[in-house]
Amino acid sequence: MASNTFGRNLKLTTFGESHGKAIGGILDGVPAGISLDFDAIQLELDRRRPGQSKLTTERNETDIVQFLSGIFEGTTTGTPIGFMIPNKDHQSGDYSNIKEVFRPSHADYTYYAKYHHYDYRGGGRSSARETANWVVGGAIAKQILKGKKIVIKAWVNRVQSIEVPLPYSQLDLSNIENNLVRCPHEETAESMMQLIEEIKQEGDSVGGTIQCLIQGLEPGIGDPIFEKINANLGKAMLSINAVKGFEIGSGFAGTYLKGSEHNDIFISDSATMRTDTNFSGGIQGGISNGEDVIMKIAFKPVATINKKQDSINKFGKKIVLNPKGRHDPCVLPRAVAIVEAMAALVIADYYC
Amino acid sequence: MASNTFGRNLKLTTFGESHGKAIGGILDGVPAGISLDFDAIQLELDRRRPGQSKLTTERNETDIVQFLSGIFEGTTTGTPIGFMIPNKDHQSGDYSNIKEVFRPSHADYTYYAKYHHYDYRGGGRSSARETANWVVGGAIAKQILKGKKIVIKAWVNRVQSIEVPLPYSQLDLSNIENNLVRCPHEETAESMMQLIEEIKQEGDSVGGTIQCLIQGLEPGIGDPIFEKINANLGKAMLSINAVKGFEIGSGFAGTYLKGSEHNDIFISDSATMRTDTNFSGGIQGGISNGEDVIMKIAFKPVATINKKQDSINKFGKKIVLNPKGRHDPCVLPRAVAIVEAMAALVIADYYC
Amino acid sequence: MASNTFGRNLKLTTFGESHGKAIGGILDGVPAGISLDFDAIQLELDRRRPGQSKLTTERNETDIVQFLSGIFEGTTTGTPIGFMIPNKDHQSGDYSNIKEVFRPSHADYTYYAKYHHYDYRGGGRSSARETANWVVGGAIAKQILKGKKIVIKAWVNRVQSIEVPLPYSQLDLSNIENNLVRCPHEETAESMMQLIEEIKQEGDSVGGTIQCLIQGLEPGIGDPIFEKINANLGKAMLSINAVKGFEIGSGFAGTYLKGSEHNDIFISDSATMRTDTNFSGGIQGGISNGEDVIMKIAFKPVATINKKQDSINKFGKKIVLNPKGRHDPCVLPRAVAIVEAMAALVIADYYC
Amino acid sequence: MASNTFGRNLKLTTFGESHGKAIGGILDGVPAGISLDFDAIQLELDRRRPGQSKLTTERNETDIVQFLSGIFEGTTTGTPIGFMIPNKDHQSGDYSNIKEVFRPSHADYTYYAKYHHYDYRGGGRSSARETANWVVGGAIAKQILKGKKIVIKAWVNRVQSIEVPLPYSQLDLSNIENNLVRCPHEETAESMMQLIEEIKQEGDSVGGTIQCLIQGLEPGIGDPIFEKINANLGKAMLSINAVKGFEIGSGFAGTYLKGSEHNDIFISDSATMRTDTNFSGGIQGGISNGEDVIMKIAFKPVATINKKQDSINKFGKKIVLNPKGRHDPCVLPRAVAIVEAMAALVIADYYC
Repeated sequence: MASNTFGRNLKLTTFGESHGKAIGGILDGVPAGISLDFDAIQLELDRRRPGQSKLTTERNETDIVQFLSGIFEGTTTGTPIGFMIPNKDHQSGDYSNIKEVFRPSHADYTYYAKYHHYDYRGGGRSSARETANWVVGGAIAKQILKGKKIVIKAWVNRVQSIEVPLPYSQLDLSNIENNLVRCPHEETAESMMQLIEEIKQEGDSVGGTIQCLIQGLEPGIGDPIFEKINANLGKAMLSINAVKGFEIGSGFAGTYLKGSEHNDIFISDSATMRTDTNFSGGIQGGISNGEDVIMKIAFKPVATINKKQDSINKFGKKIVLNPKGRHDPCVLPRAVAIVEAMAALVIADYYC
Repeated sequence: MASNTFGRNLKLTTFGESHGKAIGGILDGVPAGISLDFDAIQLELDRRRPGQSKLTTERNETDIVQFLSGIFEGTTTGTPIGFMIPNKDHQSGDYSNIKEVFRPSHADYTYYAKYHHYDYRGGGRSSARETANWVVGGAIAKQILKGKKIVIKAWVNRVQSIEVPLPYSQLDLSNIENNLVRCPHEETAESMMQLIEEIKQEGDSVGGTIQCLIQGLEPGIGDPIFEKINANLGKAMLSINAVKGFEIGSGFAGTYLKGSEHNDIFISDSATMRTDTNFSGGIQGGISNGEDVIMKIAFKPVATINKKQDSINKFGKKIVLNPKGRHDPCVLPRAVAIVEAMAALVIADYYC
Repeated sequence: MASNTFGRNLKLTTFGESHGKAIGGILDGVPAGISLDFDAIQLELDRRRPGQSKLTTERNETDIVQFLSGIFEGTTTGTPIGFMIPNKDHQSGDYSNIKEVFRPSHADYTYYAKYHHYDYRGGGRSSARETANWVVGGAIAKQILKGKKIVIKAWVNRVQSIEVPLPYSQLDLSNIENNLVRCPHEETAESMMQLIEEIKQEGDSVGGTIQCLIQGLEPGIGDPIFEKINANLGKAMLSINAVKGFEIGSGFAGTYLKGSEHNDIFISDSATMRTDTNFSGGIQGGISNGEDVIMKIAFKPVATINKKQDSINKFGKKIVLNPKGRHDPCVLPRAVAIVEAMAALVIADYYC
Repeated sequence: MASNTFGRNLKLTTFGESHGKAIGGILDGVPAGISLDFDAIQLELDRRRPGQSKLTTERNETDIVQFLSGIFEGTTTGTPIGFMIPNKDHQSGDYSNIKEVFRPSHADYTYYAKYHHYDYRGGGRSSARETANWVVGGAIAKQILKGKKIVIKAWVNRVQSIEVPLPYSQLDLSNIENNLVRCPHEETAESMMQLIEEIKQEGDSVGGTIQCLIQGLEPGIGDPIFEKINANLGKAMLSINAVKGFEIGSGFAGTYLKGSEHNDIFISDSATMRTDTNFSGGIQGGISNGEDVIMKIAFKPVATINKKQDSINKFGKKIVLNPKGRHDPCVLPRAVAIVEAMAALVIADYYC
């Protein structure tokens, strides 16, 4: 059944396989009258793009989004925004060698189990290429939120064991784009990049965590019982294939505290209610309280590696997968754009 | 806008405040012809019930669910199942003292910010009492799944720092109900209970983690791109007020591995494809692969404690909250029933 | 799959069979802060109630709605409004004689074909009793609309061949409730009542048409392309079992005109745009233009009659249905309340 | 808010303005493994296309649909089918003369009232061009239904006062495509064509009715209470801009009968239940009973005429609209394809 739509008021519906003619989507529910910054949208796509730096896969996709509707003279009309991103190399490949192979920890087998066939040309619909659609939708969502003074920022917090040593409040987030790894702590960024280079040489991959911050959300946003901000953010992040964990506010660490330590005490403020701590991560009962919304997202190491691996084909026969010659050792720097996009879609939904 | 429905094919819509006449819901989409075990449903409610043991709050709710429709001669008819659970003490309280108070880390303030009033009688709609509705829905979902040979089990894995020392595969899960804390590892259970007793004496509360296992799911279940099993399970768990973190498969720990270590290699099996490891947690590309689906859920310590606390009232004036005289030091043993219910609702949805 | 919810922003989800313990529903999405007039809600139920006058079935249901949540001190809280209407005689009947019978033009057979069983106790879920739930939801929707100065009025326009001879603009709609048949044209009402009495004596039933007027809708309400006001009103009315036709604006009659005759010419008005004719029925492109929204709804004669009829049982054997001794010769006067309720739910949805 | 999606299991989401770069959509929920007949899809587009015959507008759009995803080697993959239809003349027009004009009985004014601007280039999103998207979706839906032996046929039943004199059961529906007006009764078709030619000369337009027949639907399809076949068909048809009325089964005519005349008596049949009459139009309680589903749809004369007309501009100033030089005197022959498409989408939804 239909399951390619995200959101309630602001709906992103997507299509496309990695090796079809194009991927694309429809963003429905954008209010009329928003003047769009197209460079900002393209910039988000560029941040997500494989091959944007020596740290990622060499495959150099240049993703150019084409808008087909919903925009008139640069401004949204209130009607659905159709868009597409052509696939450049959709007829090139010779896939005969992987045609009947189930790659480890890819979705080849599960798609085959579900649909009784699979599109062997690079993962088909399960390919991470789909996330380019999310980034387009999210980039527009960000512009909706900009008008509400809401800012969303994500960054790489940890690569394998190399972690930013400071809480986010002590970081200068304007540094995120200053290095290839998108980590705002320069020293840590250096170590991360060195590690990724090494892993790339090994033909292997590494995971880590991304942090994401939402600032400027006024109190009272969120729809209990089943459209809570935290629940929808969790769903959004866990929709990313490589994500295996999600935390909001105090997360797993908070479970070691006592209630008397964990409770966020209100402090009086002339204009608004504030809390002195923010273990709640800006959300109570699924509704924003005006404090920062802070999340951490766990990315496993990506499954595509540049090493020999045992696997199996669809007849149950053991085979050996040979190295492809290229791979992305660490998706985290690129995934920053995806995380921001999904967060923006979730939050903008409450404003559409 | 409407936001009290969970699910697509199997929809649970709920209503009710902690101190209204009743809470209840409608479970819509249950197939016709399922012979219901009503004792099993009531048993789940009893597992969730506050006051069921000395470890929980003393408040002794006896939640008796009344089914109003959708069942004829003990069997589902395919029409919506309406149910209600009367609130016993809905007219009793004198709340004048907390009427204008925002309790720390409760949803009093955020509900007030959203709806411009709040139902001060014990948390209103944000009360954990709502989860009794989820347990009723989930208990029926479990019976739908039973016919598919799918079993869902949750247990307390950690209370504060006291953690089960073994992986789930080495636990005898038939022991879960053998102790008050619902931990299948007896020795750990003893320590947990002792800790909870101590915390209760202090008037404080503790959090921890619950693990949840789904077994028997055939390969091919799950609807990409936006109705993935993992994403929907995440949303379900993060809808529980106290939950601040969610992991599936290798979770945060998996982010320290390399791709070559984390990939689940297929092994040939006469009947089905299997993998030798299960870092994926039974799901690839949002679709089940036939392996165990295993999750970990982080519960913060509950906000209601039996101690003096500083807070604020709705006029921004500082006040001191006095102890209520009773509280639930650790919701984890009861939350096991809620976790199972939500997992069952998510999975049964794919079968309805 | 789940299919008992109506609406998007304002969702009515219902449950209940005619002979279960209760029917009821959840109205989700009602804004906070609406002070409810409970007498007005009950009045709507009374207007729908069988047995309210000598013109209808003798069966005297007294439907008293019980609100269970979402209302605090008489005012909506923004949380879902749960309600139930107990069934008075749910254990009384002896249905053994109709247990395996498919009554002509009832849904006995189709429910059996779909669910492989049917609830023979008076039609089960397909019973018109369900519409009492709609009337409760609609009565609240009306109160939401009242705050927007939107008024919805329906009346009986034709019973069989006896029709109001004037266009609605020449009727005094304050007369609707002045007679048992709910027709604002007194002379016609007299003839209608006489006809219904005769038909009742025959043991037969008659149909006719109801007109429904929505006034006060500001220009710009309605959501193209697939949530147009006219389309949603049509769906709402066609959800009523006895309805076989629906018209809006010029309806079928308008198809005999030429475009030059049918076009509604704009006239200049100091404050707003108006049109000199209203063949469009207040809607263009699915969006209101500020003119009256006017509909006509065709009700077939109800299937339950008080006469011998041939039929068949579930084994395909011919049987003869004997008269039940009571029936409702014409549902139109009661259906006025249902039509208004459904129209109110459709329109209020755009405001929630 | 988002409102450009039709369907539940089989979802068609569309985008596009008449004068943007392209229109298109995403059909989500198509089962995997359906081998598509692309010529049949294009044929449906050709049937809908303006300028296909001398009876319609001279504007000769050649709508060629491009499929972008969801199909591999000619067969559906179970993933969403993205498609687009380029607009050929999207940069051509000089619209300065109609830029601020509200055309009578168009949606110019209502879109302006809703979105506070309007896309003056030929109606924007409210243009009938959007229905080309529906025809693409419907053409695929038809192929889904073909595998279930369900056939949907629509034809022109009446143009202004010229009506087919026979019930549909006495028509040879294989004649529908034999004439330009798509009326299966040759003699009537001749008169209709003559009338349309005359009306075209006058610069005026005419309406009429289309009948639509669904055959082969097994008993038991349809989801009460709020996803009844008849209600969803009604919504589908009333989503077409020119439609002002909808009938199913006996429709308005049936309201003149008594219950004893209108009831469809079951007759015994070796294999299935049948009824001797079919006033119900194949549906009882919202569920199919295996008989023909028969509808009638009222189309008003289209608003665009080739005559001088008074109107108003957005400043409330009276203006005179001059003839455009071309127009479509009767959309009914083309609308046959739209009606079939929408009916197919409704029915296929129950099978996806």
